[in-house]
Amino acid sequence: MPKGYAIHDTKDWTNFKVEDFDLKPAEDDDITLSITHCGVCGSDVHTISGGWGKLAVPYVIPGHEIIGTVTEVGKNVKDVKVGDRVGVGAQVSSCMNCVPCWNDNENYCRGDGKKGVLDTYNSKYADGSIAQGGYSTQIRAHQQFVFPIPDAISSENAASMLCAGITSYSPLLRNGCGPGKRVGIVGIGGLGHKLRFHSPQYGVLFAAAMGAEVIAISHSPSKREDALKMGAKEFISTKETPNWAKKLAQNPLDLIVSTASSSAVDLPAMLSTLNVHGKLVFVGMPEDSFKDMRVQAFAGNGCFFGSSHIGSRKEVLSMLKLAADKEIKPWIEVLPMSRCSEAVKRVSDNDVKYRFVLKQDLE
Amino acid sequence: MPKGYAIHDTKDWTNFKVEDFDLKPAEDDDITLSITHCGVCGSDVHTISGGWGKLAVPYVIPGHEIIGTVTEVGKNVKDVKVGDRVGVGAQVSSCMNCVPCWNDNENYCRGDGKKGVLDTYNSKYADGSIAQGGYSTQIRAHQQFVFPIPDAISSENAASMLCAGITSYSPLLRNGCGPGKRVGIVGIGGLGHKLRFHSPQYGVLFAAAMGAEVIAISHSPSKREDALKMGAKEFISTKETPNWAKKLAQNPLDLIVSTASSSAVDLPAMLSTLNVHGKLVFVGMPEDSFKDMRVQAFAGNGCFFGSSHIGSRKEVLSMLKLAADKEIKPWIEVLPMSRCSEAVKRVSDNDVKYRFVLKQDLE
Repeated sequence: MPKGYAIHDTKDWTNFKVEDFDLKPAEDDDITLSITHCGVCGSDVHTISGGWGKLAVPYVIPGHEIIGTVTEVGKNVKDVKVGDRVGVGAQVSSCMNCVPCWNDNENYCRGDGKKGVLDTYNSKYADGSIAQGGYSTQIRAHQQFVFPIPDAISSENAASMLCAGITSYSPLLRNGCGPGKRVGIVGIGGLGHKLRFHSPQYGVLFAAAMGAEVIAISHSPSKREDALKMGAKEFISTKETPNWAKKLAQNPLDLIVSTASSSAVDLPAMLSTLNVHGKLVFVGMPEDSFKDMRVQAFAGNGCFFGSSHIGSRKEVLSMLKLAADKEIKPWIEVLPMSRCSEAVKRVSDNDVKYRFVLKQDLE
Repeated sequence: MPKGYAIHDTKDWTNFKVEDFDLKPAEDDDITLSITHCGVCGSDVHTISGGWGKLAVPYVIPGHEIIGTVTEVGKNVKDVKVGDRVGVGAQVSSCMNCVPCWNDNENYCRGDGKKGVLDTYNSKYADGSIAQGGYSTQIRAHQQFVFPIPDAISSENAASMLCAGITSYSPLLRNGCGPGKRVGIVGIGGLGHKLRFHSPQYGVLFAAAMGAEVIAISHSPSKREDALKMGAKEFISTKETPNWAKKLAQNPLDLIVSTASSSAVDLPAMLSTLNVHGKLVFVGMPEDSFKDMRVQAFAGNGCFFGSSHIGSRKEVLSMLKLAADKEIKPWIEVLPMSRCSEAVKRVSDNDVKYRFVLKQDLE
């Protein structure tokens, strides 16, 4: 029977207990995985600690950066067979019956009244089945949300690409990141900062691999060396650079992807560094409102502010191909899955370079 | 000698006095106009009443929707000759020496350290010359910012196109307004509302002329009939339609142009009506910050918020051609220029359907 590391109470969010659970009933499009690895995402911490509200299910097994081996396939399944190495990210279902779903935007599924975007854990299928995540032995999901992993990428390296990676890759791809473009990545951060939703490393790694000139922007200077090693051409510490925004505006950015999860970001300054009609895309999710959001900050360069939600299957496959072709390796720390409590605590403290991956150790 | 209706004190902003003034020194690219008409813009009121800060010059002659007859041209001037009917909008100079200026984005000029975006009035040229606006007998400007008016458009009808018109037209054009698109125009408004920066009528008129399906969105239902006559396919009163945003989201908008000048707009509701990656462009300029600007409101559909600044010469010319070809006629009220005091008061009270145009009556 499937089992996993579960949290029962958001007030006791580091106290994992191993629980048995049922997979959703197998359908013709479903793929079942035996899980070997699972990344630890900031959203795991937000969810189990109650930062995003009460638990939606009696107990939550978190984890949505999942790698495993296929053990069972429904009769409609193409592209994947038993024994293949595959991954599952932060979404396991959509309605498949709305305009976004028909147009490679199932990550923006609007729902058809019966089904909609279904998160990988802390959620329920229409039939009442509970979706549990990857700090566990097994998961079952519709083939649309199960991705073959290229041989060139190790399971450890692939895991965190499936949420952190695609969350940075999709807005880069959709907003013209490429040769000749200057792309800012905000939120390299450092120890002692508030929990980040996503590691900024993928923003730097992918934007550089896509051919853009990458400018890493961070409050503290502590991550300068790492950011440059990851592929940033410039590193700017906003704390140590007076008039950083004015300096950047002299050679403005075409796109900024921000992983900062704090609303304390100086939004007008950030926007002022953009090119005409440049975009600032927040993939971090501050829990409160921006304090200083005035239209005036957008008029001088006609810039835009927006956000993004993971990525489509098509984009996940193209990201994995890029990572394989360019030999992109994330900076991770691997722990046995039984140390998930330590991992979520350290993610909460932002004490990780730059992502944990849990390795299966349940029988 | 040129003369115009001037305000000396923002506390006494309806007390216009006729003042003589000097034009800027004539240069080889300059065109001088004898003014016949000038529209009254919300920004005239913002400026003379001090809403946007102290006056930058000893007295201000407002007006930046100017039509007149050419009386003098510098030796570099092409396209225009003495006797031609031309217009001047809200910008009279840019550096011509930066990337935006080189790319038909002189309205987003970044400046070259000497010159930059120069507003038509309440501003100074690099040589110290004071720029005065169109509630006057004459204006002189660089040929880049002087536009030939097609014969098919009367001077009365052309005037307000040069700020209000282009301010709506540019974001429509740049963000894909056209056949097959659903475009929302926010801020049809009504009596008793706070001063609007721009009349929303041009949003409706131009979006409809460009072939889009126009949805006029207004708090009060009072302008329903007018909006439909202007070319809106639907009219939604947010006051009278419970769940208006949820209803709109069932058939979402590709683009919204908002002329509302209040930050009290329900931003999350407005954003929720957009298609995947749809845009909300504010051309109104609330004086304060939005209260509820959270990243979460942007993630579900990956939408964007932005603003815009008038339009480029290229766009002004294309707008005038569209208006001539499609016989677009704005809804205006014409007053003699000597009644400018009454006009600005009524604009401040939002008591105009939908734009005043002042007709020259100074000798």
